[in-house]
Amino acid sequence: MKLSPLQLARYQYNPKLPGMLRNGISEICVSNGKATQSVADQEKIQALFPNTYGKNEITFQKGQNTSEAKKQIVGVILSGGQAPGGHNVICGLYDALKATNPENVLYGFKGGPSGLINDDYLIFDDAYINQYRNTGGFDIIGSGRTKLESEEQFAIVADVCKSHGITAIVIIGGDDSNTNAGVLAEYFAAHNTGVQVIGCPKTIDGDLKNEDIECSFGFDTATKTYSEMIGNIERDANSAKKYWHFIKVMGRSASHVALECALETQPNICLIGEEVAAKKMSLAQIADYIADSVASRAAKGWNFGVAIIPEGIVEFVPEFSVLIAEINELLAGEKTAQFNALPSWKEKYAFIENGLTKESMAVFAILPENIQQQLFLERDPHGNVQVSLIESEKLFSALVKDNLAARKAAGSYKGKFSAQHHFLGYEGRCAFPSNFDADYCYSLGYNAFMLIQYGYNGYLSKVSNLHKPAEEWVAGGMPITKMMNIERRNGEDKPVIRKALVELDGKPFKFFEANRELWAVETCYTYPGAIQYFGPTEVCDLTTRTLALEKA
Amino acid sequence: MKLSPLQLARYQYNPKLPGMLRNGISEICVSNGKATQSVADQEKIQALFPNTYGKNEITFQKGQNTSEAKKQIVGVILSGGQAPGGHNVICGLYDALKATNPENVLYGFKGGPSGLINDDYLIFDDAYINQYRNTGGFDIIGSGRTKLESEEQFAIVADVCKSHGITAIVIIGGDDSNTNAGVLAEYFAAHNTGVQVIGCPKTIDGDLKNEDIECSFGFDTATKTYSEMIGNIERDANSAKKYWHFIKVMGRSASHVALECALETQPNICLIGEEVAAKKMSLAQIADYIADSVASRAAKGWNFGVAIIPEGIVEFVPEFSVLIAEINELLAGEKTAQFNALPSWKEKYAFIENGLTKESMAVFAILPENIQQQLFLERDPHGNVQVSLIESEKLFSALVKDNLAARKAAGSYKGKFSAQHHFLGYEGRCAFPSNFDADYCYSLGYNAFMLIQYGYNGYLSKVSNLHKPAEEWVAGGMPITKMMNIERRNGEDKPVIRKALVELDGKPFKFFEANRELWAVETCYTYPGAIQYFGPTEVCDLTTRTLALEKA
Repeated sequence: MKLSPLQLARYQYNPKLPGMLRNGISEICVSNGKATQSVADQEKIQALFPNTYGKNEITFQKGQNTSEAKKQIVGVILSGGQAPGGHNVICGLYDALKATNPENVLYGFKGGPSGLINDDYLIFDDAYINQYRNTGGFDIIGSGRTKLESEEQFAIVADVCKSHGITAIVIIGGDDSNTNAGVLAEYFAAHNTGVQVIGCPKTIDGDLKNEDIECSFGFDTATKTYSEMIGNIERDANSAKKYWHFIKVMGRSASHVALECALETQPNICLIGEEVAAKKMSLAQIADYIADSVASRAAKGWNFGVAIIPEGIVEFVPEFSVLIAEINELLAGEKTAQFNALPSWKEKYAFIENGLTKESMAVFAILPENIQQQLFLERDPHGNVQVSLIESEKLFSALVKDNLAARKAAGSYKGKFSAQHHFLGYEGRCAFPSNFDADYCYSLGYNAFMLIQYGYNGYLSKVSNLHKPAEEWVAGGMPITKMMNIERRNGEDKPVIRKALVELDGKPFKFFEANRELWAVETCYTYPGAIQYFGPTEVCDLTTRTLALEKA
Repeated sequence: MKLSPLQLARYQYNPKLPGMLRNGISEICVSNGKATQSVADQEKIQALFPNTYGKNEITFQKGQNTSEAKKQIVGVILSGGQAPGGHNVICGLYDALKATNPENVLYGFKGGPSGLINDDYLIFDDAYINQYRNTGGFDIIGSGRTKLESEEQFAIVADVCKSHGITAIVIIGGDDSNTNAGVLAEYFAAHNTGVQVIGCPKTIDGDLKNEDIECSFGFDTATKTYSEMIGNIERDANSAKKYWHFIKVMGRSASHVALECALETQPNICLIGEEVAAKKMSLAQIADYIADSVASRAAKGWNFGVAIIPEGIVEFVPEFSVLIAEINELLAGEKTAQFNALPSWKEKYAFIENGLTKESMAVFAILPENIQQQLFLERDPHGNVQVSLIESEKLFSALVKDNLAARKAAGSYKGKFSAQHHFLGYEGRCAFPSNFDADYCYSLGYNAFMLIQYGYNGYLSKVSNLHKPAEEWVAGGMPITKMMNIERRNGEDKPVIRKALVELDGKPFKFFEANRELWAVETCYTYPGAIQYFGPTEVCDLTTRTLALEKA
């Protein structure tokens, strides 16, 4: 195995812990906070979580460790999509566990939640774990998307834990995985298994965020990596002065990633799904909004620009959601075969025209032909349109092109429009964690073990005050039930952690909104450059603009 | 203008000069080397360059500066595609010029060579130039692709120079631009204009390389940026274990970028255009070669991998070039209209089947339908196939998919194959230059001024011994004619700098060849991470693997 010079250098990095955890295991004690309530639907949540509801929030502080001396055997899983820093959560967990008692054991279940079901694991030792310190990726034990949510699964997990003498499970995942961690904790308590569950907040999407979680880990590194690329593309646009770059960034459910990247790089355009939904914007309105910027810049001789498009944007456009629903209806069941049997696209198009409402047909008609065809030809096993396959960066550049052609015909635009398309996703999920994510994740893992050691169950490892230097961070725990409310999912009322969307009255969006008109017509690009792990602290230890603005 | 923390920090960086240029302007003297000959076609080149042929190579060394005291008014242009470090060439040029005589003046002609023709310029001062130190991009004066090659253009340039009292022009460009710099130098000498021309070797493609140019600037930073992304994608592949990633990288004429990225990241597959051409590989053979790796890995349970595809790969496949030529012929002139009039793709396909030779039809038949259609439907203004629009990363993944389906039917493959596609190009051309490129470029510019000051014309700014620390670099000049040979271009014999392709018996390719079988079946990924500008020298001051191997 050939290791890169950076990887070798990063092995030497010592992640920074919150000040209160820096005095050694024997000097960490608990400060009890208030009893908690769920954010909404308190009675229903309490009824569903009789054993784990309403517990106190807690904070660690310096003082005599009063936890019970007990051999701990802990299991850990990584759940869902990769996020930079996952390895450091496990390293922090391992270090605290071994520092507490060298006889303690850490199991890593492989390939995500299914590893727990299939009892597929490894046992960590120093030699193995040292290869992963401060590195990106989830390859230390792999990850997976199996959901741990049924009683049958819980029973199997309980058996697996019993067979190894496991005393606690740490689940590193997003909102769904932490919801399931809370449900599993309740199951374990209700069945007197004696096994504890602790969750850690992961996701590059930034949509696992609330009063208790200032940010999910990985968001910092992923957005910095995308912003590096976007800044480089901006500088290229501003040098060559001949292309509009449409850059799609990851983030299906929320536009936090797009917003953070826009705050970092000051592009001409950034669409925010939540705003599109709130204003009920149509595709044509969005295209017109972008074309306004293109035309204003062209009038100054600037036939170039940069637009950031969130991956999930089309799902926020109300008329588009209606269209998708109608198409799914139009081809439901055996109607697909009937449609497919039509000899050419011309006949198929007539069939579509007949089948859609006038309103949806108007939306369909403005789509570029390749996207029209994609909506009808590429369908998932249930016959549904695969919205995730729609290349929204190409869709909007095509719509803008049409809009500009109309302006040109009307004499209101004389520029040139040539587009390049990019998708930034896999490039950022496994980067070496920034110093912030390396520190935050290590602290989350270390803290998770302290929660285990002090006997907590159904708690989230919570590290806060993150906009301050690590010395001032606050470590503690929060009952997962506190973050829950009841939502309708697949036709059922479920207790879930609410997904955090971009708040249109929040400071990050407000800052963007106050500046974007200028950015759209001027060239205000900012070039963040590559993540730096060494050097001046103002370069290396910077948190996200989102966090800075939220805490401002 | 909001500047990023990294940009502010990079302003403080002092680029390292070769030791011999570190003693101040008054302590730089010339050591004459041997008279030179062109690399081939000596008599023809000499006849074309009577005034600039056969000059001595020269090296600078520490000693009394004996150059003539004379006010210098210098013009500089950036030519062609962006490459990290271009700003530093201009900064080095400016600093040496001002250090020699504060009365000296540097003109920057805007938007590339056309700036010289249109007399569109700015005059540099400290305040302006300081904004661009150690930054990426060519936005300092812009760039362009106009070719300076006709006598008419040269006469205009001579007039522009005369009007400003310009004594020398520095041309920062690739092989074509430096060829034209040599021709312009000869013109200036032949017409006794008294204006000197100095070239600087730029291109991220790495194909401006020879006995005198160890590497062109920008290659280091661009390949490190692409390798950062490829490494991140590899780590994602190895974590999620469910995708094959096909990553296209820039480089149309030569595969140096792909090869360097492969040496940095050790992917499962990297295609090299020069090898494909030398072995006369067919599309089917290439697909089979990739599918072998997919199948071997699948047999171990690894349904993931990473393949690097050079942008220009299809032009190296002999049968594909023949197909393109036949299509261009098939639709020449009015036949396009006849073809377009056919009612559907079915009729068009029959027309194609009739028109192509059996061999080319066999190649056409294995292409995915969207690429078949693209070849016939998207054509340049001359009616030719736009080979550059072909998404070769998608082409090869489609061919591999078909190949695997055949293996599955035959029972020799049981895996899953799901692909993701990436194109890395604009993301790397304008990154903040690595320390290497920052130092190298600054030295090239500084050195270029010393060549001007000592009266040289038609010389390339040459900095060599680049695999050693900057202290040991060697600065000097080489007549551009030395790098020339005669090649057939657009039906004419032209004196040109030979484009450097990947040498299949060179050390970088040999190293790759010796390791790739292992890399194809095992998981030997290396994760370079983001370019570091601060920190340990083994992380920050690393040159390319290509240069290290060539000098090993």
